[in-house]
Amino acid sequence: MDRTQLAQLLDQVRAGTVAPEEAARRIGALPFVEVAQAVVLDHHRELRTGIPEMVYGASKTADQIVLAMRELEKDGGAIATRVDATKAATVLAALPGAVYHEAARVVRIGAVPPRPPCATIAVVCAGTSDLGVAEEAALVAEFLGAPVLRVGDVGVAGLHRLLARVDEIRRCDVVVAVAGMEAALPSVLGGLVDRPLIAVPTSVGYGVSLDGLVALGALLSGCVPGTTVVNIDNGVGAAVAAVKIARLAV
Amino acid sequence: MDRTQLAQLLDQVRAGTVAPEEAARRIGALPFVEVAQAVVLDHHRELRTGIPEMVYGASKTADQIVLAMRELEKDGGAIATRVDATKAATVLAALPGAVYHEAARVVRIGAVPPRPPCATIAVVCAGTSDLGVAEEAALVAEFLGAPVLRVGDVGVAGLHRLLARVDEIRRCDVVVAVAGMEAALPSVLGGLVDRPLIAVPTSVGYGVSLDGLVALGALLSGCVPGTTVVNIDNGVGAAVAAVKIARLAV
Amino acid sequence: MDRTQLAQLLDQVRAGTVAPEEAARRIGALPFVEVAQAVVLDHHRELRTGIPEMVYGASKTADQIVLAMRELEKDGGAIATRVDATKAATVLAALPGAVYHEAARVVRIGAVPPRPPCATIAVVCAGTSDLGVAEEAALVAEFLGAPVLRVGDVGVAGLHRLLARVDEIRRCDVVVAVAGMEAALPSVLGGLVDRPLIAVPTSVGYGVSLDGLVALGALLSGCVPGTTVVNIDNGVGAAVAAVKIARLAV
Amino acid sequence: MDRTQLAQLLDQVRAGTVAPEEAARRIGALPFVEVAQAVVLDHHRELRTGIPEMVYGASKTADQIVLAMRELEKDGGAIATRVDATKAATVLAALPGAVYHEAARVVRIGAVPPRPPCATIAVVCAGTSDLGVAEEAALVAEFLGAPVLRVGDVGVAGLHRLLARVDEIRRCDVVVAVAGMEAALPSVLGGLVDRPLIAVPTSVGYGVSLDGLVALGALLSGCVPGTTVVNIDNGVGAAVAAVKIARLAV
Amino acid sequence: MDRTQLAQLLDQVRAGTVAPEEAARRIGALPFVEVAQAVVLDHHRELRTGIPEMVYGASKTADQIVLAMRELEKDGGAIATRVDATKAATVLAALPGAVYHEAARVVRIGAVPPRPPCATIAVVCAGTSDLGVAEEAALVAEFLGAPVLRVGDVGVAGLHRLLARVDEIRRCDVVVAVAGMEAALPSVLGGLVDRPLIAVPTSVGYGVSLDGLVALGALLSGCVPGTTVVNIDNGVGAAVAAVKIARLAV
Amino acid sequence: MDRTQLAQLLDQVRAGTVAPEEAARRIGALPFVEVAQAVVLDHHRELRTGIPEMVYGASKTADQIVLAMRELEKDGGAIATRVDATKAATVLAALPGAVYHEAARVVRIGAVPPRPPCATIAVVCAGTSDLGVAEEAALVAEFLGAPVLRVGDVGVAGLHRLLARVDEIRRCDVVVAVAGMEAALPSVLGGLVDRPLIAVPTSVGYGVSLDGLVALGALLSGCVPGTTVVNIDNGVGAAVAAVKIARLAV
Amino acid sequence: MDRTQLAQLLDQVRAGTVAPEEAARRIGALPFVEVAQAVVLDHHRELRTGIPEMVYGASKTADQIVLAMRELEKDGGAIATRVDATKAATVLAALPGAVYHEAARVVRIGAVPPRPPCATIAVVCAGTSDLGVAEEAALVAEFLGAPVLRVGDVGVAGLHRLLARVDEIRRCDVVVAVAGMEAALPSVLGGLVDRPLIAVPTSVGYGVSLDGLVALGALLSGCVPGTTVVNIDNGVGAAVAAVKIARLAV
Amino acid sequence: MDRTQLAQLLDQVRAGTVAPEEAARRIGALPFVEVAQAVVLDHHRELRTGIPEMVYGASKTADQIVLAMRELEKDGGAIATRVDATKAATVLAALPGAVYHEAARVVRIGAVPPRPPCATIAVVCAGTSDLGVAEEAALVAEFLGAPVLRVGDVGVAGLHRLLARVDEIRRCDVVVAVAGMEAALPSVLGGLVDRPLIAVPTSVGYGVSLDGLVALGALLSGCVPGTTVVNIDNGVGAAVAAVKIARLAV
Repeated sequence: MDRTQLAQLLDQVRAGTVAPEEAARRIGALPFVEVAQAVVLDHHRELRTGIPEMVYGASKTADQIVLAMRELEKDGGAIATRVDATKAATVLAALPGAVYHEAARVVRIGAVPPRPPCATIAVVCAGTSDLGVAEEAALVAEFLGAPVLRVGDVGVAGLHRLLARVDEIRRCDVVVAVAGMEAALPSVLGGLVDRPLIAVPTSVGYGVSLDGLVALGALLSGCVPGTTVVNIDNGVGAAVAAVKIARLAV
Repeated sequence: MDRTQLAQLLDQVRAGTVAPEEAARRIGALPFVEVAQAVVLDHHRELRTGIPEMVYGASKTADQIVLAMRELEKDGGAIATRVDATKAATVLAALPGAVYHEAARVVRIGAVPPRPPCATIAVVCAGTSDLGVAEEAALVAEFLGAPVLRVGDVGVAGLHRLLARVDEIRRCDVVVAVAGMEAALPSVLGGLVDRPLIAVPTSVGYGVSLDGLVALGALLSGCVPGTTVVNIDNGVGAAVAAVKIARLAV
Repeated sequence: MDRTQLAQLLDQVRAGTVAPEEAARRIGALPFVEVAQAVVLDHHRELRTGIPEMVYGASKTADQIVLAMRELEKDGGAIATRVDATKAATVLAALPGAVYHEAARVVRIGAVPPRPPCATIAVVCAGTSDLGVAEEAALVAEFLGAPVLRVGDVGVAGLHRLLARVDEIRRCDVVVAVAGMEAALPSVLGGLVDRPLIAVPTSVGYGVSLDGLVALGALLSGCVPGTTVVNIDNGVGAAVAAVKIARLAV
Repeated sequence: MDRTQLAQLLDQVRAGTVAPEEAARRIGALPFVEVAQAVVLDHHRELRTGIPEMVYGASKTADQIVLAMRELEKDGGAIATRVDATKAATVLAALPGAVYHEAARVVRIGAVPPRPPCATIAVVCAGTSDLGVAEEAALVAEFLGAPVLRVGDVGVAGLHRLLARVDEIRRCDVVVAVAGMEAALPSVLGGLVDRPLIAVPTSVGYGVSLDGLVALGALLSGCVPGTTVVNIDNGVGAAVAAVKIARLAV
Repeated sequence: MDRTQLAQLLDQVRAGTVAPEEAARRIGALPFVEVAQAVVLDHHRELRTGIPEMVYGASKTADQIVLAMRELEKDGGAIATRVDATKAATVLAALPGAVYHEAARVVRIGAVPPRPPCATIAVVCAGTSDLGVAEEAALVAEFLGAPVLRVGDVGVAGLHRLLARVDEIRRCDVVVAVAGMEAALPSVLGGLVDRPLIAVPTSVGYGVSLDGLVALGALLSGCVPGTTVVNIDNGVGAAVAAVKIARLAV
Repeated sequence: MDRTQLAQLLDQVRAGTVAPEEAARRIGALPFVEVAQAVVLDHHRELRTGIPEMVYGASKTADQIVLAMRELEKDGGAIATRVDATKAATVLAALPGAVYHEAARVVRIGAVPPRPPCATIAVVCAGTSDLGVAEEAALVAEFLGAPVLRVGDVGVAGLHRLLARVDEIRRCDVVVAVAGMEAALPSVLGGLVDRPLIAVPTSVGYGVSLDGLVALGALLSGCVPGTTVVNIDNGVGAAVAAVKIARLAV
Repeated sequence: MDRTQLAQLLDQVRAGTVAPEEAARRIGALPFVEVAQAVVLDHHRELRTGIPEMVYGASKTADQIVLAMRELEKDGGAIATRVDATKAATVLAALPGAVYHEAARVVRIGAVPPRPPCATIAVVCAGTSDLGVAEEAALVAEFLGAPVLRVGDVGVAGLHRLLARVDEIRRCDVVVAVAGMEAALPSVLGGLVDRPLIAVPTSVGYGVSLDGLVALGALLSGCVPGTTVVNIDNGVGAAVAAVKIARLAV
Repeated sequence: MDRTQLAQLLDQVRAGTVAPEEAARRIGALPFVEVAQAVVLDHHRELRTGIPEMVYGASKTADQIVLAMRELEKDGGAIATRVDATKAATVLAALPGAVYHEAARVVRIGAVPPRPPCATIAVVCAGTSDLGVAEEAALVAEFLGAPVLRVGDVGVAGLHRLLARVDEIRRCDVVVAVAGMEAALPSVLGGLVDRPLIAVPTSVGYGVSLDGLVALGALLSGCVPGTTVVNIDNGVGAAVAAVKIARLAV
């Protein structure tokens, strides 16, 4: 049901040819396509939020991922995240043409459908251990139609590396910074770059790092106003936020 | 030292008329203007980040706030946040023309200097108890040059109120959502609006609310990808992030 | 020992034919039926609380579950919860006629014995990942004699889905709402429905979700007075509470 | 706007005399009665949820409480909770006829308007330090039209006191149990009574009690299935939940 | 080195035949018997504290447990705790005569050597899931020479069971109460029995139980003064404390 | 109602002259002596637990403390704890003969009534900041009839002080060790003394000390088996536990 | 009792003119100089640890601080920390010649006695709000005999400020870095400087900063190996650690 | 690129033969040697911080560890930490001459290259369970060129063992103390030794030990000023810090 169909239905309500209750029932009922016993996809989502459905693989079986990606591929292309290597093997066997990005735990299939125009997003990564989350963010941003600049291994302990690449980063319109442990990178970056900056804490670390809670707390406590934060390891959320912003910049 | 002066200095380094060490010393030394024993203002900040210095009143005495605002007012106007009523009385007595916004705990003085063009920001507020934080965000955004749409008291427990105002919100380019307690508003809003959405948890609540930690956790755990979050009660941070985004949208 | 036997015993104490100490010993001693070395079933429980014994499978071996269900089946039917797939295979092999509900991790055997009359309970579920806990609640409620309306995948990020089914939910007398992550569903539902509402947080989520603690905190902090809460993933507890209420409504 | 007016408006939409957008605007706009700058009352709430607006005094000034109670009193009677002694003095001076319950921190004014019929609620209290929260629950329940049985000082350390009153409690249809510190009372009560049981943890205690978090955790971890829980010190929430249940029992 | 040898050495220091430094060296050096690369046993411990060395199996390999038990058995008998089933198989194969208590995860070998006289200890257990920890406490207490009364499955949800056995418990001189989840048993017991009472929280539970932290907090917050507490699942610590007390009672 | 009266009543039940329900009513009803609106004293407690009622002043007004102490003084003497200096002034003015111990925040009145015989208790204190809690424990123990040895300022940072007094401590039958911050004292003491050892963490410290939670955790994690622990700052609980043990040692 | 006296005493033990018990008693007894009811000073401390006693003012009254400083001044000079402005006024009135450093909350009196030689310590401070803690560290280090280089307001959000002063810092032998909020400064510094680096988290911040716990966690999680950390706001501890190191560097 | 090359490059900038941008590019670009897709080594690090790169094995595959060690071995020798037994087998098969220290989970290859002179470091270990972390610290310190004194099994529960070895420890210039559970060892040691003391909490313990958080908290709360702390189980960090200090002491 696209925007035209919806407008028609509401006209019918005004014309009295469809009762309000019936209209409510139809709007509610239509979008439910049951692709499997426990997996419901929402074809309305892109209409409402500008972001298409993506498959969150962590809480699904390989079979559910396959069914969901097949259904979504009808719109032109699909992406699944948090797919571990074991599930990925099953998914790739069932979906010819699908590609698996191991570090990012992402499966992609099909071409990216036409998307709204979008400015370039820098995905900056503090340490080699954070690369998986950064790559998840980069792949999702590309799936949503954004050009991506990847900048890796620029943690603050080797400040010269970061400074050598600041100009490149400044030329992008939005910055996603991925950092674990004490997560100092976004604080330094926030003082150097005047673009919207989205920080992703990662669960890299041990002991008092508390699986990323300290990185999260450090990012939220940061002294540079204007940095915003997403959940630990949430590359998808950061990518979606960055794309929504980058679409405004064109 | 503005951008022109900086370029001149770097040219002198290349020309050999200024030694690199000397240049580094000058760049480092110049911006420090000591307005009081413990208050250092950074006139370089706007140059680097596009956001002027604002006075964070919580950790300063009334006298320090006065000194800092006087210094900053030379650039055209100044704002101080987290100023309680007692300090505000002293500040207003010392700064003729200053205005105090009590619920927001904000002091403003002078006209807003010319700022880069900026799209409209919606500041949406869940409950009456969250109004102070929301107003802080709105005032800071206006100080930074943004038009602001204020939408109050649209918590999810009275869903019809929120739905009645969704179209207005959708017409803005960036949304700041302020919510305490269980902070469900941004989740609902995120499913209704396709704009960048910045959520501010507040410390409103008691018992298990843990001074806003539960609201913060709920926002970060939200099921709508693309919402980003700032620290508890951090209206300033949300405003700065929203302005950076809204400047891209014009 | 049923209520009649108990009354007889107390009459004997009054009559002096049984010493108080002896009566205490008998009351204490009788209900202990040792079905296995470490599993004690309490046939008195239904007498005292109106709720029959159910087998909590998480801390029991498959053999202990089999023994307990056999003993309880003598009363007409039995249910075991938190039975993983491996244990379930053993249990089903040993108990002909038993059925396994995989997503809910529940084993059922025998017909439901006659129960007190009970109004209909709505079990409402926010996301597909929460379906297992919701189904546990629904199966336990049915075992206790309640008619159940299942409403799935009505998370607040797709508000229209929930609104499309609100009238159905309103026609039930008690509502159980199951929600993980930020758990916003019960807040929205609480503003739409005037029935007793029991919320079940789930451990669905990652990072700052803290295995359901944030969902729990959000539910307890909710702004709609009158919602009550049970432990994380505790479908059984919610079902029992709902049934006790629904029995009052007939 | 009552239910009749709402039905009329929807008929007009069907008849085409009112545009859907206009109807949405009216429904959204009408209920906002601004009684003060920051206090919005929702006259629709009773219509939607069966529970009238009550004034939460903690985040309001004495003047705001007075204005809100005056507005609500027009419906027949009003109640404000979390009103400390200082605010209460101001409120009582401004509202002739108002009564202050000090331990419960509750202000009441006016007669209770006619309410739906409601079964009796037992409010049971573990220790003398918990009496304030218990009394808040009792007063709110009475304001909502419920008969209340108060049972005090029956903590489990003096088990005989509790046993002496169990029969009385059993004769009620719903039980609210208020307990701080280790909150063992509801566990014992849950094994003795077969009625719906709502537990309220209190912030009574020190050291590791963590302002009620341990009591809350203990209640949620309780071994008796079917007990539900509200936020720490939340006598209002427990009363509302209990009344919703007790209304089903008549 | 026993007490006689120690006295002799100190006499030699006074006599000047052994230099103080030399005496310190000898006292420090003698007790180190390296039974394996990483396992040091302290034969002095019983001399100093009245409690012999016991093998804590959790952080040792099966081979290290075997070596340690062989060394300790020379004193007459040995006990190892926290030995899982896999390690136990290896240990029993290597130590003929050793016995494994599976639920308690305890390995015993040899007769109990003569111990100081000791009064009877009651080990009381709330639920069937807590039996392992209770049995660990009971076995360790018996190894230390104490007669033990085991009282099982007397959780407060079935109060009559506990009341039926209170007189037996009262006849013991010390009580160890083992309880998980909300851990209400010791609170009830503390009001019924006037003996020293040591409570052991267990990690039984799920969700908000936090692996026993809530049980621990509830026990420490208990309203009956005089109950003392040990670490979660620490049956050994409770047994040692109880034996030290019970030895005073003879 | 003393033990004789209770025995008479139960004889009457057996004789049929008193109905069981009536007996239950009388046992339950008798002990409630309402000395003030919210303060209930339990004259039965000493009968049941061997420990008389003590007044916990933290949650009571000065007037309630006075009423409670007057009532309890009829038994020969009374003690109130957690009485701050302001309340104490009021209490002493109302109760001639009462004495206030400021550091311990304890009020005492009357002679100590005859108590069961009791061995000596050592109350050992790590730092000068912990002296208040230690003195509370000492005064309560003396009120309960125990001889007390006070050993102060023997923290482990000055090990020689502790070693100089170990022999004195060893001659007592029970040891109470009071320690804040990292609470290392009981670990050292536990390796030196073979008596029952009760540790009291205090809230002394700052930053990561978390108001005593770290001290509590350190004590429960201690490597010397047999130490038991009470709540933070709980001198009363430690004293009661120690007295129960010391009474066994005579 | 200095080292000579101690050696004499031990010689007497060897010679048999002093019994070992007597020697132990003397060593234990001597150092206790009771300057007030609850304040014990340890003149032995400098002998054992190289660091003289300093007065921790937080848990002492103004009178106790005066008594302690007078006693310590006999050794040549004294310092008290955590003295708030109110106490300081009393202390300065009683101790002519004492000086109060308000931001650092430190009172000093007398000249610094001769100390062991010591290399220069850099005390580096991230933000203006952290200056109090940094100054406490600097004053204590100077009291212990260290030359101190103060470097202020070099937080990472203005990286150029820090880079401008790195060479100065590098010329010191030990670095103390004071930082609140997200505490990124020590991470950046640790990559630029090869000296021992001690980090002090401060309680500056709000919301999720948790009174410095996040800063502490970030510092401990830092990616630069070799940084060590002290408790939140613990300027004294950092200074003592730095001085111990700096004394090795001469 | 060594220090000479860096100086040459900067001279070229001054001479105008290399543009500043080009110089920045070269400095930034050179140090990146990609030894594998996700493992970047920083040959500059030793230049900047005096500490060579070490391989952190926890977040790398066996193949990545092999590649990194081969690259680093070119500088003369290499070390990898947190290498579990499975990975170690692969690494040793690929790197002839490599040695595996199982308890410490460390792989070493090659001779230690010439390092700056360094005083002796004492690595002191509380319990046998902490030996792995202590050995990691000792091996890393030796790799960095430090002589190490290992002192094992001197926990405070057997104080005589520690006292017997204090003189040896005092002769070292820096002390690393490794302790889990309640971590009391460093407190005792800090009162006995006047050297810089670095404490390493370990994750040894169970229940309330919280995987080392309590040990960490206890160390940071310690009453002996001057002890500094590293992250839980962080033997590497303690070794690096100790070596930096010990290099100052020669």
